[in-house]
Amino acid sequence: MMNDTFLKACRGEKTDYTPIWMMRQAGRYLPEYQAVRGNVTFLELCKNPDLCVEVTLQPIDLLNMDAAILFSDILIPMEAMGTPLEFHEGRGPIFPKPIRNQADLDRLHVPDPDEETGFVMDTIRLLRKELSVPLIGFAGAPFTLATYLIEGGSSKMFWETKKMMFTAPELFHAMMEKITECTSLYLQAQARAGAQALQIFDSWAGVLAPCDFEEFALPYVKRIIADLNDTGLPIIYFANNGATLLDLSVSSGADVIGLDWRINIGDAIKRVGNKAVQGNIDPFSLLLPEPKLKKRIQGILDGAKDAHGHIFNLGHGINQFTPPAQAKLAVELVHELSGR
Amino acid sequence: MMNDTFLKACRGEKTDYTPIWMMRQAGRYLPEYQAVRGNVTFLELCKNPDLCVEVTLQPIDLLNMDAAILFSDILIPMEAMGTPLEFHEGRGPIFPKPIRNQADLDRLHVPDPDEETGFVMDTIRLLRKELSVPLIGFAGAPFTLATYLIEGGSSKMFWETKKMMFTAPELFHAMMEKITECTSLYLQAQARAGAQALQIFDSWAGVLAPCDFEEFALPYVKRIIADLNDTGLPIIYFANNGATLLDLSVSSGADVIGLDWRINIGDAIKRVGNKAVQGNIDPFSLLLPEPKLKKRIQGILDGAKDAHGHIFNLGHGINQFTPPAQAKLAVELVHELSGR
Repeated sequence: MMNDTFLKACRGEKTDYTPIWMMRQAGRYLPEYQAVRGNVTFLELCKNPDLCVEVTLQPIDLLNMDAAILFSDILIPMEAMGTPLEFHEGRGPIFPKPIRNQADLDRLHVPDPDEETGFVMDTIRLLRKELSVPLIGFAGAPFTLATYLIEGGSSKMFWETKKMMFTAPELFHAMMEKITECTSLYLQAQARAGAQALQIFDSWAGVLAPCDFEEFALPYVKRIIADLNDTGLPIIYFANNGATLLDLSVSSGADVIGLDWRINIGDAIKRVGNKAVQGNIDPFSLLLPEPKLKKRIQGILDGAKDAHGHIFNLGHGINQFTPPAQAKLAVELVHELSGR
Repeated sequence: MMNDTFLKACRGEKTDYTPIWMMRQAGRYLPEYQAVRGNVTFLELCKNPDLCVEVTLQPIDLLNMDAAILFSDILIPMEAMGTPLEFHEGRGPIFPKPIRNQADLDRLHVPDPDEETGFVMDTIRLLRKELSVPLIGFAGAPFTLATYLIEGGSSKMFWETKKMMFTAPELFHAMMEKITECTSLYLQAQARAGAQALQIFDSWAGVLAPCDFEEFALPYVKRIIADLNDTGLPIIYFANNGATLLDLSVSSGADVIGLDWRINIGDAIKRVGNKAVQGNIDPFSLLLPEPKLKKRIQGILDGAKDAHGHIFNLGHGINQFTPPAQAKLAVELVHELSGR
């Protein structure tokens, strides 16, 4: 018996209650995840379908989420393009050979997703046998992926990325073309393997002025979503810190617009119009004592009452220091207050 | 002969052209600044009025800015409250003893700004003798200052700050009270010393959901601005990454609303209404080749044509790697395109 509340909300259909899942719900805040992760490196975990299945299922079983999201990392297909990728504890991802010129870019190839990231597709196939909630596949958006390749890892200011955009736009666009082709094929493969919805994470879109987002980032998101049209799957586009990019995000063609916590959800829904929304509680507000957490969740549910579909979520990934009991309480409150 | 274009724009009066200055205009991108800084530590520089005067004047003389901003750091009054402050190259500010409980907070005192930060007031008095453009004084906003004290320095996620807000709100508010009193007195002293406008930098306001900004940050900004009412000076409030906080920011009582680069300036002006605005080109877009930079500046000037006063600025501090010639070009273009 499949719980399809999440999929109905994605399509803007009436649901009996508001479905909830949390970005990074399979992650470090769960002792059960830490136990698995203790025996392997992060990349070994990402490439081991049995372990990926195990950690993907944990928040469904423990916290009663209404959707599962494939355990993986947005940089997995970038490594498959031919850029060595390292994860060091507490430092985030590192690309020791950043992509900064045409010769660097020429070294990258567009991988066959089934061949070169087959472990992801295996994970999806295995998960579908186990799950009684829908499975979300995902990828990073091209701009966000490009920042990691250009900066050589995480960044605070994105100087190298913007330097390339502003002083070598042809090179930047050529890079975006290649990443877009890779990402489009990667998501199509996830759809074939059995993903039931697809989320595109544009974690760093919010560092762009709207005019630059429109010129350098949005066209590539649009192309990927158009390529996925035949799959019939709902597409969620999440431009983090993207309050000023909302109107443009709506034009991406996505079915669901992800909202970070910085915007009042009612204000966002007025601008999103006839699309479903996903979000948007501040992940750190899960720390609130129960009466205040309840009030805050009620406020978001009230704000979203006129949405054409609402999937409750955090406005960003769950923080590693969040007590799992508080995450569980939030799930219960969303269910209870929305009429489950 | 005083160039008062900046002050007129702050007050929403007609100006012959659009005045421009740049946040962090006295800073590391200038070789002339590096030469001064090479002989002293950052804190030594901040506490030496003669050197502060020298670096404050550099961008006025070299780049023809229409306003000067006092060279200092927002954390100077926090150190005066009794928290040891360190700056390490490339790491940003460090408070080795973060403020996390009532006992920590009790250690802080509200300093007499003329006694304990007299070097700032001396700098202002000296600058007023030298300058032919208006002098902007400044302080950090209480929320932003609190994040540094609580986190012990810069932060990416602000976990400790939000943990205190959400689990110990009385302690958080008590801390904000104390910081607010310090900041209010500090800005009043700058006004007495001769500052001609005052900017309040809320660098981290943008990490707050609007409901939390309204509860935990805005009331303290309002109080400071009310306390400054008798000075008659224009007050600029800059909530960085604050697109979703604009309506609330307008209610702060500030005369000028600073805008970061993430928002289209025309959209912002519609929401700001009868206030002057300051901003908002992406600092990294100063790298654009001249024809594109010109087009971008023209776009911002066009977007601001209905503003009740517009001060051209960057949407954030100038980046240390910006070629000074490009900053100079931007100043020339703003002047030329706006009719100087």
